[in-house]
Formats: sequence, structure tokens, C-alpha cells
Amino acid sequence: MIVDVSKNILIVGLGLLGGSYARALKRFGFHISAITKEQSSIDYAIAEGLIDEGSIELDENIIGSADLVIFALYPHVFVEWIEKNQHLLKSGAIITDVTGVKGSIVYKIQDMLRDDVEFIAAHPMAGREVSGVENSTDKIFQGANYIVTPTAKNTPEAINTCLELGRLLGFSNVTTLSPEEHDEMIGFLSQLTHCIAITLMTCNDKENMEKFTGDSFRDLTRIARINDLMWSELFMANKDALLEQMDMFADKFNELKTMLRENDVEGMRKMMRHSTKRRALFDKK
Amino acid sequence: MIVDVSKNILIVGLGLLGGSYARALKRFGFHISAITKEQSSIDYAIAEGLIDEGSIELDENIIGSADLVIFALYPHVFVEWIEKNQHLLKSGAIITDVTGVKGSIVYKIQDMLRDDVEFIAAHPMAGREVSGVENSTDKIFQGANYIVTPTAKNTPEAINTCLELGRLLGFSNVTTLSPEEHDEMIGFLSQLTHCIAITLMTCNDKENMEKFTGDSFRDLTRIARINDLMWSELFMANKDALLEQMDMFADKFNELKTMLRENDVEGMRKMMRHSTKRRALFDKK
Repeated sequence: MIVDVSKNILIVGLGLLGGSYARALKRFGFHISAITKEQSSIDYAIAEGLIDEGSIELDENIIGSADLVIFALYPHVFVEWIEKNQHLLKSGAIITDVTGVKGSIVYKIQDMLRDDVEFIAAHPMAGREVSGVENSTDKIFQGANYIVTPTAKNTPEAINTCLELGRLLGFSNVTTLSPEEHDEMIGFLSQLTHCIAITLMTCNDKENMEKFTGDSFRDLTRIARINDLMWSELFMANKDALLEQMDMFADKFNELKTMLRENDVEGMRKMMRHSTKRRALFDKK
Repeated sequence: MIVDVSKNILIVGLGLLGGSYARALKRFGFHISAITKEQSSIDYAIAEGLIDEGSIELDENIIGSADLVIFALYPHVFVEWIEKNQHLLKSGAIITDVTGVKGSIVYKIQDMLRDDVEFIAAHPMAGREVSGVENSTDKIFQGANYIVTPTAKNTPEAINTCLELGRLLGFSNVTTLSPEEHDEMIGFLSQLTHCIAITLMTCNDKENMEKFTGDSFRDLTRIARINDLMWSELFMANKDALLEQMDMFADKFNELKTMLRENDVEGMRKMMRHSTKRRALFDKK
């Protein structure tokens, strides 16, 4: 592709992320279409100039003319869509996704897909605490990571197209990982942090705590406001990797508890110095 | 007191917090003195107009003329200071502190203190990630909590003076709790969150994770950069209350792990909805 603006792009699932993709890509002049559940989302996106056309039906013309299809759906909805509707895709089309887990999705899709269509998976690590195309903005891609997770089945052309897509969208870091590396990383950096936040938020229901809350507690629980449908599905789709990260965290937490119980001040201080040193790596550059 | 600016205020320990107290109180015209370890801190504070006089010695004139003494020291240093030097305090003086734990300090100080001096404990819930009088600012009190923890030994006059002090400093919420209520609250909202942050920061040393870090992980580990000397002392000084909070957290985290392992999606979703609902209480008003 490499900014061949004569190509047709189809976005399946026009929510916050799909809408933000449309908003970012429209600037380059691509023909952009969308298929989604709600007519109101289509109407909004056409009125705002985010897309050229759209449908809440499986419009054969729209699907059959798309060179690049971006699936912005829940994991199980994405898998079902391909199972039922892949015969509608254009021969030679490249399809990609935005799914936050990879190992349990990528191989499944690639195994069932027609030979003349290629699936190259990607995870745009961007989002907001609100949803819907009405809240879409390409600002969420600034400073964020876009990760392409190729397998042995992918061609260099499709991989390059997907990397180029990440750059066109405006992501600051566009890179590749294997599906397994991706899932381990996301299990630690994203899913474990959400597990911790919801645990902290629900482990002590004592009243009036909020009156004394400072910034530390607010920072640790910002993501405790969570979409239960989506996150429970993401947890389940990355179950093994997440359980491993949860075990590592629980073991270390238990070490700290033991040190405190046994008055091991030196042990606690050593852990704190390790923490301070390692945190410096994670500062925003 | 109630803004009787003829009163002399002494600050013992002129660091970030002591300096910020001086900065806030000087505006009202009090005579403010300081005793601290480093001559450079005294010099800076005099040059900046934060204090009227100061010493790195136990100056008998300064200590003996103070109507209100604010101790901004590490817990064990505060206890030692009172043990050794309380004979220098003015008869009728009120003393207060900034210590972040209460039960293990308040009764000990009150039990050993002369009958003609009253200790009324307070915890200003404010701070920065930097230290030293050079970084002091009274902005840290805006939007923050100031908690007075009276006991049966305190007089209404001293309690009111201490509440008034919190308001003069510019704290947004000035309130009272028992030492035990305070320690439970601080164990949960502050100390447990620091335990979690340093555990998350040290439980997985895999390389290059920082390349993919997003805001969630950064938010949860901001306080993982930690003063090991101070926090290990604060943890030890609140050991029982903190261990109880750590157990509550670990039990709930283990529940979540079990639900994930056993594919209990409904259980996870219920916990997430509970989390979302409870988090709304903690939004900044």
C-alpha cells in the first residue's frame, strides 16, 4: 500500500477505536466505508466526514470492494464474523484487527481464512474511558504503541502494509512482536494492572474512605472503572499468560508481607530501592 | 490561638513539609523559628523570608519561647527528641506533629510528656516526590486532607488550635479521627497502595517492558519511586493495621485468580461492576 490513496478501506465495528481509525485515515484521502450495528453511528460518521459510506447490513458491494479491512470488534464477534462472512471478502484483500489479545485469536483466524485473503494482526495500544464513535479522536494514538504480531503465515508485503497503517494512524511507536511475546507483555503491563486496580477497589468496602483519598489511591484505581463485558472476555482470551503474571505478583506481594511480619526492615528497604531504580526506566521519555 | 499572630511558632525539622508549613504560616505574620540539621536549610529559609530565626543547635531561647512547636521529623527521631529535650519546652506550650502513623506514636509521646505541655497529633496528608526546604510550597495543601487525632488526654483548646492550624495552612479538608481510625484508613489508602506499587514494579524484571508501557502502568507505579528509609519506618510503625489491609487485598486478589482459573466469567463481571460502582465515589469532587 504505502499511501496509495486509491485503495478502499473498510472498518467493521464503528465504535471509539474504529471511529478514531476513520478520523485519522480520512485525512489522507482514502475511500473509507464502515459496517456496524447502529444506524446512528453511520449517520454520525457520514455527517462528520469520517466515512464515505456505511451500512448496518452485510453490504456485498462495500465488503467486496475493500482492499484493506479493519476489524474493530470484540474477539469472539470477530471470530464469528470471519466464520460466517469471509466469502464476501475481495480476493487479495488484507485484513487486520485491533484485538488486545493475540495468541488465542491470530492462529484461529489464519487457520480458517481463505487462501486468497491475508490476516495480519495488530494491537493499537490506545483507548479512552468513554466509548462510541461520537467520542472518537485520533489524539489517542499520539505517544502510544502500535504492535504488529506476524506469524509464519504472513507475507512481508502484508506486514509492511500493517506497519505503514500504524504510522499513518499517528502512533509514536510502531513495532512487531510474536503473538506469544505480545500476550506476556500485555498480561503484565495491562491486564495485571487492571486486576490489581479492581482488587484494590473491592477489597475494603468500609464507608467514608473516599473522604480521605489522595492522588496515590486515585492513580491506582483510575482503571478500576472498567467495561466488565470486554475485560472479562480479554482476561479469558489470555488466561494462561495472565494467570502466570498474577502468580508472580502474588508471590512477590507475599514476600513483602512476610518481611513486614518478621520485622525484616533491611529486606523491605532493598525491595524499595529495587523498585525506585526500576521505575526510572518507565518514565515518559 | 485563632490567628493570634503574637504567638511564636517553632518548626523542628525544616524539610519539604516543615518548609511548606513555614511558607504558609509566614503570610499571617507569625514569628517563626526553626531548628534543623543543616545550616544550609536555615540560611535558605531566612533568605527566602520563610523564618525569622533558626539554629542547628538546641537553642534554649528559641525552644523556650515557642508557644506552638511543630515536629516535622521521622517518627523515631521525634520520639527521641521528646525523650531527651522536652525539659527545654515552654510551660503551657502546645506541640503537634506531621507523622503519617498515629497509634504507635501518639500515646507514647503523651505518656512521657510533661504535664504542663500538651501534644495534639495531626497528619497533613500532603507531600511531593522531591524533598528539602528548597522544594517547599504551600500549594501541596490545596485540595488535601489535614487530620487531627485527639485522645482522651487532649483539651478542647488544643484540639481547636490544631484544627485552626490546618485551616491556616490552607488544607481543603480539616477533620478529626481517632488514632486507630486514622491508622486503618492510612493503612488502606496510602500504605497498601505503596505496597502494591513496589510489588508490581519488582515482580517481573523482564527486559524492554518499558518500551510498551502505557498510562495505566505508569499510574499504578508512580509511587513505586519511594524513599526506602522513611517508608520502611512508616510500615513498621503501622505494622498490624497494614498487615490486616494486605491480607484483605491478597484474599480478594486470590478470589479473582480463582475465578479466572475456573472460567467463572459471571463472577469476574460482578467484581468488575462492583469496582466500577465503588470507584465513582472516589472521583475528585
